[in-house]
Parts: sequence; structure tokens; C-alpha cells
Amino acid sequence: MSVDASVLPFDSIRSLLANLPGPDLDAVEAVRRRDRILTKPAGSLGRLEDLVEWLAAWQGAPSPAVRRPLVAIFAGNHGVTAKGVSAFPADVTKQMVENFAAGGAAINQICAANDLGLKIFDLALDHPTGDITEMAALEEKECVATMAYGMESVAGGVDLLCLGEMGIGNTTIAAAICYALYGGKAADWVGRGTGVDDEGLARKRAALDAAIALHREHLRDPLEVLRRLGGREIAAMAGAILAGRMQKIPVIVDGFVATSAAAILHAAEPSVLDHCLFGHVSAEAAHASVLEKLGKKPLLDLNMRLGEGTGAALAAGIVKAAAATHSGMATFGQAGVSEKG
Amino acid sequence: MSVDASVLPFDSIRSLLANLPGPDLDAVEAVRRRDRILTKPAGSLGRLEDLVEWLAAWQGAPSPAVRRPLVAIFAGNHGVTAKGVSAFPADVTKQMVENFAAGGAAINQICAANDLGLKIFDLALDHPTGDITEMAALEEKECVATMAYGMESVAGGVDLLCLGEMGIGNTTIAAAICYALYGGKAADWVGRGTGVDDEGLARKRAALDAAIALHREHLRDPLEVLRRLGGREIAAMAGAILAGRMQKIPVIVDGFVATSAAAILHAAEPSVLDHCLFGHVSAEAAHASVLEKLGKKPLLDLNMRLGEGTGAALAAGIVKAAAATHSGMATFGQAGVSEKG
Repeated sequence: MSVDASVLPFDSIRSLLANLPGPDLDAVEAVRRRDRILTKPAGSLGRLEDLVEWLAAWQGAPSPAVRRPLVAIFAGNHGVTAKGVSAFPADVTKQMVENFAAGGAAINQICAANDLGLKIFDLALDHPTGDITEMAALEEKECVATMAYGMESVAGGVDLLCLGEMGIGNTTIAAAICYALYGGKAADWVGRGTGVDDEGLARKRAALDAAIALHREHLRDPLEVLRRLGGREIAAMAGAILAGRMQKIPVIVDGFVATSAAAILHAAEPSVLDHCLFGHVSAEAAHASVLEKLGKKPLLDLNMRLGEGTGAALAAGIVKAAAATHSGMATFGQAGVSEKG
Repeated sequence: MSVDASVLPFDSIRSLLANLPGPDLDAVEAVRRRDRILTKPAGSLGRLEDLVEWLAAWQGAPSPAVRRPLVAIFAGNHGVTAKGVSAFPADVTKQMVENFAAGGAAINQICAANDLGLKIFDLALDHPTGDITEMAALEEKECVATMAYGMESVAGGVDLLCLGEMGIGNTTIAAAICYALYGGKAADWVGRGTGVDDEGLARKRAALDAAIALHREHLRDPLEVLRRLGGREIAAMAGAILAGRMQKIPVIVDGFVATSAAAILHAAEPSVLDHCLFGHVSAEAAHASVLEKLGKKPLLDLNMRLGEGTGAALAAGIVKAAAATHSGMATFGQAGVSEKG
């Protein structure tokens, strides 16, 4: 993956979006051939079978495996927190990054339980993005540089990438992105996030209305939506999704905020999420709406709304088990089991 | 757990059903107290938080843990297979038991992926139960002895028990049980199982109608439903559910067939499943209907219909992760993370 600095920044992203590799259909066919002779009724592993085909298609591997799964958490801070949109103070973003490093967060325990690697990418936490109700969140070069930084998350032989985030205020950011991409009313996209009260909810709606009013003339281009309304962790996750596609690494997207990054790419090029699995549907109600816009069926529905990649990491456990069934099961011939009469 | 041989067999089961221990509410309160100070917004782990409370309630442990999870698979053969109700020959039950022992089945891979113990209990496979369209499946003493055998599965310090089964023909058995317990039409409870064609489906419906017509006068007592229409693996799973309850071991029930065992107990005493989680909803359509009758919301929905405990074992992975979040996360105080403003 290279982002050519000699062209206009967003053009380098547009060039990637125009040249996306497709699935490896030979690998999918190889998986289907083996699946037919494994000791189980055809189709009886349901979605697990789909997951193995998905891994094969996007790893480009006829015998897909998950040996180096990684959860990448991107952390960013947001100027819009000045508008009182979160139940927690903005300092918590950095404090939670330290908690991740010390192994004390929910995602640390889930990664340990499912044997997943974990890397934290903190993104200029001392320099929050611009308050989207008053200015653009990011400059274009800054936005593309952050996408490029996100692309680095796939380095080191990762074969399954789970994308999560941390950022006080970022359900407001995600809601603003969805409002810009899909329209409707601010209330359609705003929820309680980490737990704001009714007044906090009203402040979130007001922030969305102000932000959309301010940027209204510039929201037809999804990359401008990202730059003006997004945040660094959103840009980095968008970059990571693109990098996964280019480098044959299937991606599991976490909840509402991570999905807003995916939604920006999807608005620019609908096929860009073909290598992405959506790990769960969040309790933040807008998430189900975005997933419907994207035409994606989440793997899990556990009423979670924490972020940190927790839903993606739980889904990765299922994906690992799916891969293990395909690679490890005996065939009818090997096991001496009679086939369907 | 003891089954007193000096009383009438079913009376020993009725006595257990009349003396079920309740949840440990102090343990649940201890979990809630700790949950409130962990570094996450209250409620943000959704169903994972419910799972930890469930473990605490039924392990009787203020700090619940999953250290010795076990998948127990009960295998039985069924006289009704003579009526052509399965897509696979009855020999496959024993062949699959050998496949389990050799590590070649789907459940072996999922147990390895989720670090779960696995034990197979084969139940007189050379002596199929009576063909339910012509006679009772079991004698009362045989039925109770098999329930008692199932109770043994909880031995050895198991702290989470997943119940699965293998038995060619047993979706017909499960359907007959549901038809007897809940009424309706045979077609409401019959599905394609391992993959019967339309004629096989018609034979399944006919078998149900014949069985219900034959036993009609004796189906008011759920234990008689078990004896007349059930199978050995059904009786053993019912015993295992009871043993889990008596010995403080939460139970994860697998799919349609395992749930039919739970349904028999539930018909006798509705509170008997309070310590049971239903791991997934099967692609066998009747499963969703039974779960609704039981008032249970399954954890996963992955379009699976294999049995073998596969859905329960995947759910156990989520339960283990849930327990790990509760026990392993830092508190706000430990991590120096600011609380809600």
C-alpha cells in the first residue's frame, strides 16, 4: 500500500477505491469442495460455513486459517466534546489508552480469552479535532495522513483484522457522519452513547444540526464528510479497511463508530466492504440502521455498546472456530462414516 | 444426587423436581457491585453482564469463573429410524461416536478452539429404543436409569456444562415430544433434520401422527412423554440438566433435540430451566417455537443445525469471555479512569 504524496491527498484514496481487488473465487470453490466431504450434513454448520468461504475469498487462500488475528484499537479526541455531548470527560480517552496498555480493559480480557493480538494506536490525543459545529474536524492532508497511519495496522503478517475504537464524544461524530450520508433527522442517528441523560441527548442532537448546517454545501463527497465531520480514529479505521482489502486481510468491523468509518468508504464505492464482516449489532440503535444501509447482517446481537473492538473480538472467536472446523474435521472417507442414503 | 431405588422410579425424579434449589442472590448482588466500578459505562457489555450474573446465581459464586467447562454429548439410537425418517442410515450414530473419539468431528474442533473439555456418553447404541409408532420407546426403569446415567456427566469438578447429542432419527423424536407437549399439527414440529427430501419429510409427519395416535391417552404426564416418545440421549440430557441444578453447575443447552429434553422438564416444573442458557437457535424451524414456549432467548443465531453440542460450545466461548471481563477488568480506581461526569 502506498499513498503517493505527489498527487492530491484525497486523489490517492480515490485511486485505491477505483482499483479494489476482488474475491478469490478459486479459493472459495476449493473450500466448497472440501466442505462437501466433511463429516456433517451439507449446510449444517450454517453461518460458520459462510465465514470459512469469506476467509478464503479475501485471504486468497484455498485452506484459510486464522493464525495471527489482531484487534487494532484507534483512539482519538474530538473538539465537539466542548458541547457537552458525552457522559464522560474527554480525559477518559487517554486514561483508557493507558488502561489498555496495562491490560485492564474489557478488550484485554476478550483478546486473552480468544487468543487475539491487540495493538493500540493513539492519534494525537493532546490535539483534539476541530469542533464540527464550528469548523472542519481535519485538514485534508491530516485526514489522508491519518488514513495512511491506519493502513499500517495490517503490518506484520496479520491474517484477520478486528477494528475498534476509543474516543470520548465519538458516537456524536459517528451520528454526524450518518446524518450527512443518509439524511433523515438528527434524532434518527443520535443515541445515549456511554450513557448521556436526556439533556445530553438534546445537546447531541443540537450539535448534529449545527454541524450539518455549517458544512451542508460540502457533504456530497464522502471523503469531505470524513474530513469535516469525522475524527482521527474514524479516518484511521477507514484506512485500515482499505489496507485489509489491498493486502488480503479480512476485516471484522466493531460497532456503531467503527461502522461509520466503513459507511464513508461504502458511500464512495459500494463494493469496498465486501471483505468486511460486521461483528455485532450495537445497542446504540442507529447501528442497526447503518448496517441495513450497508446491506450487512451482523454476526452477533448481544446488546453491547462499549466499543474498544469488543464486539469484533467476540466475533473473531466464532470465526476462529469456523476456520478450525473446516481445517480440522475428518472427511467421510477418513472417518469411515456412511454418507447420506 | 441420588436416585432412591426403593421408591417408584419416576417418583424419584418428581421428588427432585419438587425440591429445586434457587439462585444465589447474594452472589448476583456481589457481581453487580463489582460491575458498577469496572472501567466501562454501566450496562455497556449488555448480555455479557447478564451472563456473568447467571453464572454467579447458579454456581453460587460471588466471583464466578469458568475453569472446567465440559461439553457432554449423549448418543442414542431410535427404533423409529425403521420408518425412513432420516437422510442418513442408523449406523452413522455409532460411526460418529467413533469420529468424536478420534477427534474428527466439528465439535472436536470447536472444543479445541474454545478450550472446552469433551466427553461422549454412548447409550446402548446396539439396542435402539422401541419404535414410537408401535410401542413405548423405553420402560420406566430404563428411562430413569438413563436419566441417572446422564446425571453422572457433571462429575469431576465441572463448572459449566454444555449439553449436546448425536442420534440418527432424533429430530423425529424431538418433534414427537414437542407435538405431545404443545399440540398443533405434526408439520409444526417436523423439519428436514440432517436433510431429508420431501418424501422423507412426509414420512416424519406420518411417524409423528402414528406415534401420537398410539400414545394419546398417556401424554398428560411429561415423564410419560419422555418414556414413550423419547430416546436415551433425551433422557440422559434431562438427567444432566437436573444434576446441574442440584450441583450448582450452570448448563448450556444446544439445539432442537437437546431443547426437547429441557422442554419435558419444563412441562413438569417451569422453574427447572432457570439455570439453563440456550446457546443458539437452530435452523430447524421448530427450535424457535420451543424456545418461545420456554420463554428463552438464545445467545447465538448462526443458522446451524448439526447438533453434537456445537451451538452450545460456541456459546460457551462467549460465556468464558464474559467471565473473563468481569474477573479481569480494572476498576475506575485501579486504572485512574475518571467516572461519569
